[in-house]
Amino acid sequence: MTVRPVSAAHNAKARHAVDLRVDAARLGRDLEELGAIGRTAEGGVSRPSWSEADVQARRWLQGRIEAAGLEPRVDAAGNIFGRWQSGGPVVMAGSHLDTVPNGGAFDGALGVLAGLECLRRIKEEGIQLRHPLELVAFTDEEGAFGGFFGSYAFTGALRPEEIPNLKDATGLRMVDAMAQRGMDAMTAPAAFRDPKVVRAYVELHIEQGPVLETHRVPIGIVDAIVGIRRFGITFRGRADHAGTTPMPDRRDALLGAADLVQQGRKLVLTDGTPASRLTVGVLKVKPGAANIVPAEVYLTYELREVSAEMLRSLAVRSRALIADIASAWGLTVSVETILEIEPVPLADEIKECIAAAAEELGHTHMRLPAMAGHDAQVVGRVAKAGMIFVPSKDGRSHSPAEFTSDADVERGANVLLLTLLKLAAQ
Amino acid sequence: MTVRPVSAAHNAKARHAVDLRVDAARLGRDLEELGAIGRTAEGGVSRPSWSEADVQARRWLQGRIEAAGLEPRVDAAGNIFGRWQSGGPVVMAGSHLDTVPNGGAFDGALGVLAGLECLRRIKEEGIQLRHPLELVAFTDEEGAFGGFFGSYAFTGALRPEEIPNLKDATGLRMVDAMAQRGMDAMTAPAAFRDPKVVRAYVELHIEQGPVLETHRVPIGIVDAIVGIRRFGITFRGRADHAGTTPMPDRRDALLGAADLVQQGRKLVLTDGTPASRLTVGVLKVKPGAANIVPAEVYLTYELREVSAEMLRSLAVRSRALIADIASAWGLTVSVETILEIEPVPLADEIKECIAAAAEELGHTHMRLPAMAGHDAQVVGRVAKAGMIFVPSKDGRSHSPAEFTSDADVERGANVLLLTLLKLAAQ
Repeated sequence: MTVRPVSAAHNAKARHAVDLRVDAARLGRDLEELGAIGRTAEGGVSRPSWSEADVQARRWLQGRIEAAGLEPRVDAAGNIFGRWQSGGPVVMAGSHLDTVPNGGAFDGALGVLAGLECLRRIKEEGIQLRHPLELVAFTDEEGAFGGFFGSYAFTGALRPEEIPNLKDATGLRMVDAMAQRGMDAMTAPAAFRDPKVVRAYVELHIEQGPVLETHRVPIGIVDAIVGIRRFGITFRGRADHAGTTPMPDRRDALLGAADLVQQGRKLVLTDGTPASRLTVGVLKVKPGAANIVPAEVYLTYELREVSAEMLRSLAVRSRALIADIASAWGLTVSVETILEIEPVPLADEIKECIAAAAEELGHTHMRLPAMAGHDAQVVGRVAKAGMIFVPSKDGRSHSPAEFTSDADVERGANVLLLTLLKLAAQ
Repeated sequence: MTVRPVSAAHNAKARHAVDLRVDAARLGRDLEELGAIGRTAEGGVSRPSWSEADVQARRWLQGRIEAAGLEPRVDAAGNIFGRWQSGGPVVMAGSHLDTVPNGGAFDGALGVLAGLECLRRIKEEGIQLRHPLELVAFTDEEGAFGGFFGSYAFTGALRPEEIPNLKDATGLRMVDAMAQRGMDAMTAPAAFRDPKVVRAYVELHIEQGPVLETHRVPIGIVDAIVGIRRFGITFRGRADHAGTTPMPDRRDALLGAADLVQQGRKLVLTDGTPASRLTVGVLKVKPGAANIVPAEVYLTYELREVSAEMLRSLAVRSRALIADIASAWGLTVSVETILEIEPVPLADEIKECIAAAAEELGHTHMRLPAMAGHDAQVVGRVAKAGMIFVPSKDGRSHSPAEFTSDADVERGANVLLLTLLKLAAQ
């Protein structure tokens, strides 16, 4: 056996790196094993944060990290790490293990398991890189307790005074849910890591929309992550008898609400961009009896846009529309801002690495916005972050119908692998 | 003391009858006493059928009937009667004691107490009439257990097989509610009385709408009682992610529902009559999350009209509209008929008596439809029925704001008194 100097070996390995590929079969088995944890009768996956299934998935991942010989760690927010090599600013890959109730097997899981596979392959080949690599699975991305708990803590955005208020739909507090697992949620801010030691964060994710499938493009490079303005709007009129009160004399809160559903849609379709979204997902009528004119309607009015300027403009014009509609129907209205997330542009350097990786692998790619929330938007506020999208069948997600083919998973994982190698080598 | 033959006395008394008036102060005290039973913190009245307050009101009324020297009776449906003189077809006056939750002190109560006052005065004066008179307070008009239980039983419209299914909002069965009061609901159909022995039924009621007040007319003569078609409509689309699914690609069930709320209103305002009503009082969104496109919307679509032909026509055109809207928004739709009540024209003979009585008293009067349900519509299907309306302040009803002035109460009660005398004399 010829002993070569380390630097020569390094160079040989680095040249070898562009030919490196993930073990797609192994990644497929991991996806299958993880997808079985929290499997529902409908074929979906229910793994809300800190549920029994989530805890089982956490243990399973920690076992996989150890088996891969990566350095395992769980921080104070419950974020799970697996590191390859120590030292300087780290190149990270990951996503989250938790799911929405009866969600799919790919959302979050793909980014974590592809990251694991990439680090495993790099370690197996003994490739020496300028920067260490780290896998991360962030806590409660989906929001059983509000969302982004892990990435907020990691980036220093978690406000300690808010932790006691985080509750799930049953009223269970995050503090108690974590205590049941032997953790102290109040110490989660200690999970903060100085962004200076994060060279890059790359998240492979299913698109959760139809764009890549429609365009028959296997790789999406996320330009920016959507901003959100979510308003809680209450129209108030008067509860009148459905028989005795002539229609023109009514102050029917539902007439205003229905008008807003339609006119808000027209506003966003006319004045917005193809990436603009308006969704009225909650609408509640009081008193809610067939023979009583609605006195009060509460609805959520959620705008999404990737351009901060357009988002602001749509929000301003929507507020004017809401006031006009209330006045036209003889109603009063109150508008409360319940969620305000600015769009997060992702790092150009990472977009270029992803594009180069896709081209080396012979995959077509396209830029597109991420219209859902992701841990990358949280990390992207303080460090360089990037996202790779792979196609979602029929654009479906957050449902048992969520599906991405083995071939698309493999293409996405290999683009992630080459992207990580490029970022870690520079 | 001169003894006169009965027939001469009868004639003298009959001539005297047109000068007879109610004791308005006594009627006012009765309204006040009854209104205190079930009084709410907001100043309304909560006396749902068979509640503690309803049972207390029933006992109170029975005491009043006995004190007046009328012949008291409670039938198998819990209807309370007070009779003056026996024999042939009877002229009845009445309404109901029960209220909606936090309703008003006049709806139902006025018709019962004015009827009591009329019989009391006629008895006090010893007026001999061709027909006996009878006061009635029907059970559960308002519908804690579905509505019209007493008048349905009285007219033979209560189907025995439906009795076990009658439940209130808490799931309490009518059968159990009546058992708690020592009654057997299953025997209620025995309350049936042959319509041939009912000469007439007259109900004094507050208008519950703004028409009399607007026209400054103290007496309303009800032409017909509104018919109702109530549909339960379910639009079904697809639950998509509020961010990832472009707006034109959605099948948003709420867009169809909102469109129907607006277009249904236009249809009824354009093609209906001034008495046509459309109310969407219930609207429920599933899954009902701010970031999920509504997959399913259930709404009630209630049409009211006094013309049977117009009601049918509006229902047919509404069904076509519903189908068109579902198709336009890429939704499926199912329409269930949940209530179907035909309009009930009231008896011309009674309308003429009411008009004559109002004129004798110097009160202006107008014809108008009754847009709410009343026991008179149930009785009116099998016997001659009539309704007298008095003004409702601001048209308000079914609320603590329900109010009719002492003067309007007195005018209405005197019109009822003269109407009963006319009907009973002929």
